[in-house]
Amino acid sequence: MLSSLRSAIGAPPAEGFAAARRHLDRLTKPPGSLGRLEEIAARLAVLRGGAPRVERPVIFVFAADHGVVAEGVSAYPQIVTAQMVENFLRGGAAVNVLARQAGARVVVADFGVANPIAGSPELHACPIAPGTANMTRGPAMTRAQAVRAIETGARLAEHALDAGADLLATGEMGIGNTTAASAITAAITGALPERVTGRGTGVDDAAVARKVDVVGRALAVNAPDARDGLDVLAKVGGFEIAGLVGVTLAGAARRVPVALDGFIAGAAALVAVTLAPDARHALFASHRSAEPGHTVILEHLGLTPYLDLALRLGEGTGAALFIHLARAAALVWNEMATFESAGVSQSEGASDRRAPPSGAPSEAGGSAPERERTPSDRVAPAKPARERRT
Amino acid sequence: MLSSLRSAIGAPPAEGFAAARRHLDRLTKPPGSLGRLEEIAARLAVLRGGAPRVERPVIFVFAADHGVVAEGVSAYPQIVTAQMVENFLRGGAAVNVLARQAGARVVVADFGVANPIAGSPELHACPIAPGTANMTRGPAMTRAQAVRAIETGARLAEHALDAGADLLATGEMGIGNTTAASAITAAITGALPERVTGRGTGVDDAAVARKVDVVGRALAVNAPDARDGLDVLAKVGGFEIAGLVGVTLAGAARRVPVALDGFIAGAAALVAVTLAPDARHALFASHRSAEPGHTVILEHLGLTPYLDLALRLGEGTGAALFIHLARAAALVWNEMATFESAGVSQSEGASDRRAPPSGAPSEAGGSAPERERTPSDRVAPAKPARERRT
Repeated sequence: MLSSLRSAIGAPPAEGFAAARRHLDRLTKPPGSLGRLEEIAARLAVLRGGAPRVERPVIFVFAADHGVVAEGVSAYPQIVTAQMVENFLRGGAAVNVLARQAGARVVVADFGVANPIAGSPELHACPIAPGTANMTRGPAMTRAQAVRAIETGARLAEHALDAGADLLATGEMGIGNTTAASAITAAITGALPERVTGRGTGVDDAAVARKVDVVGRALAVNAPDARDGLDVLAKVGGFEIAGLVGVTLAGAARRVPVALDGFIAGAAALVAVTLAPDARHALFASHRSAEPGHTVILEHLGLTPYLDLALRLGEGTGAALFIHLARAAALVWNEMATFESAGVSQSEGASDRRAPPSGAPSEAGGSAPERERTPSDRVAPAKPARERRT
Repeated sequence: MLSSLRSAIGAPPAEGFAAARRHLDRLTKPPGSLGRLEEIAARLAVLRGGAPRVERPVIFVFAADHGVVAEGVSAYPQIVTAQMVENFLRGGAAVNVLARQAGARVVVADFGVANPIAGSPELHACPIAPGTANMTRGPAMTRAQAVRAIETGARLAEHALDAGADLLATGEMGIGNTTAASAITAAITGALPERVTGRGTGVDDAAVARKVDVVGRALAVNAPDARDGLDVLAKVGGFEIAGLVGVTLAGAARRVPVALDGFIAGAAALVAVTLAPDARHALFASHRSAEPGHTVILEHLGLTPYLDLALRLGEGTGAALFIHLARAAALVWNEMATFESAGVSQSEGASDRRAPPSGAPSEAGGSAPERERTPSDRVAPAKPARERRT
């Protein structure tokens, strides 16, 4: 299954961006004036090969434990992974609140939590093992376990896609998993451990130094192969991270946008792109986490984040906030009046005289100055102004 | 009315921030891990003096024309102001789309549009005059007109507040109004015209140079008094900007958050804070506009924007996007489970070992390490997890 997923992932047609720009420049606003919202709209349209749609987003919150906590890398005891899964199932965690607001479904899955979780029909129980092994002593998991976790994540994503999901978001919970994410990031990008290791949920300076040392030892003991994402994942990853690799690949294979949350979800994306480079076209960096390693990941992936709110919680919370922006971009594309339909005069110059927004990827910027119109390109008339109640 | 508004505006009690931090640190997340979302929640709670609420946001889109367009400062003809007002009334503009998404009501008002607008029961017709005078030849308006426009804006805001509005957002439309905003910004902050003048809706380099010259001449001819917001507003402002000054003051006087859109709304806030310095406690900088003068305004007001999407459209579009963040902050405050209610273990250390997020204003950061609990502080149990449909 993993190899068929990998071979299904390709780049969207490059000419799609020019058509997307033509559509966006026809809407009643100066060309490019909605900045990065237009970039999102264009990327969504090109990925989908048609009008973007964000109506049924799904947030995957995968949980697992990490043997490396024995090295004293977290401010919280391991039992918190199980307790927070129960909190997710009761709807009381931050991601539940933000998902409800965003109209997103939350899929909670146990990929290998060490402590027992109170039974719930809402829980997808797919544990690979009760936590990974301590990666400072040897590989965190076997290669077969890594593949199984990826395929399980992909299968959960495919079920959601078959049920109509049109945006997948990646979230996680796992005490100790920022240490695994740091090790993955160092292994794949070549950055030094001290550059990609931060405070996680809030450890002190001594513990950060300990985490840096732990990451260095894990890399020395395991010598992961940077070009082989599976090798990196098995040796210094985590089960929940592997599951999110599967979600990321499944979304990319079906040309459905994947909204990445923060550092740990970013590490999963890093592995996914190592396995299938064209997966990056489906990836949206929801936000820039306060974790320093996240910026290293985003640079490596060539993604500029859309939100920068100093979040460092994980769970999918940043991705949940991004859903509002993705939906806004889709609604602008679909619901705004055109200059023609609204009878609004255009700019007195002929073409767009503005450079594209600095953060836009090159293929999404560079507003085409074209102005021709064809009836088939015209959008539906704007909906009635139901928001004005008086 | 203006003087009673000004005297009604005071600073919220400083001790409110410690209580807000205590509440936020009790929720099931590492202290401060929701970054600037927690800053928004704390500021909303302190302003309101209780649990924040963003259920009935209202976006004010005020339109007017500017005599200074005779100097060739815009890429669009003046008729576009009237055409776009008609687009707002039909619900086809970007702000309509984004307001519908955010569940916000849009109040469209004519504060002095030069061309006729097709009649609509949705339009608040309160024109001061058919456009301002050309500010390079003398004052844009009289002091009496400025006061009248402010009071009209305040009255529209008060009607909305009386009907239950719990967040006011400021938006505008007016061909030529970035030139007025640049002049206001230069006059009040002392920045040079070239530092606060940009491309507006998309003029070329020659037109930017012309705008800089126009702003310089307007300031030289009128010599506005930087300490007198009314003088600045009358001499180099606009009717729609004056109306937004009224909205800003009315929100601050009633301790209701005012979400500022971009550069022009920011210029209105600058005038409002000159008239009533404590109004700044009610102000939320929705986003950082691509207009260079906006950054100068935000620095002067001591506000760090929450979104940075290179928007340069105006209308209230950035404020509409910010509503999602403000609502997210309020929902986190109200709906998340506490460590106690969810039975989740806390950090193994005693206190928060993280510095506050760098962008937070000093009074909102500095997480108090207190951990005591009183029943009256406890939030309601989390709502059922209605987002999980399978």
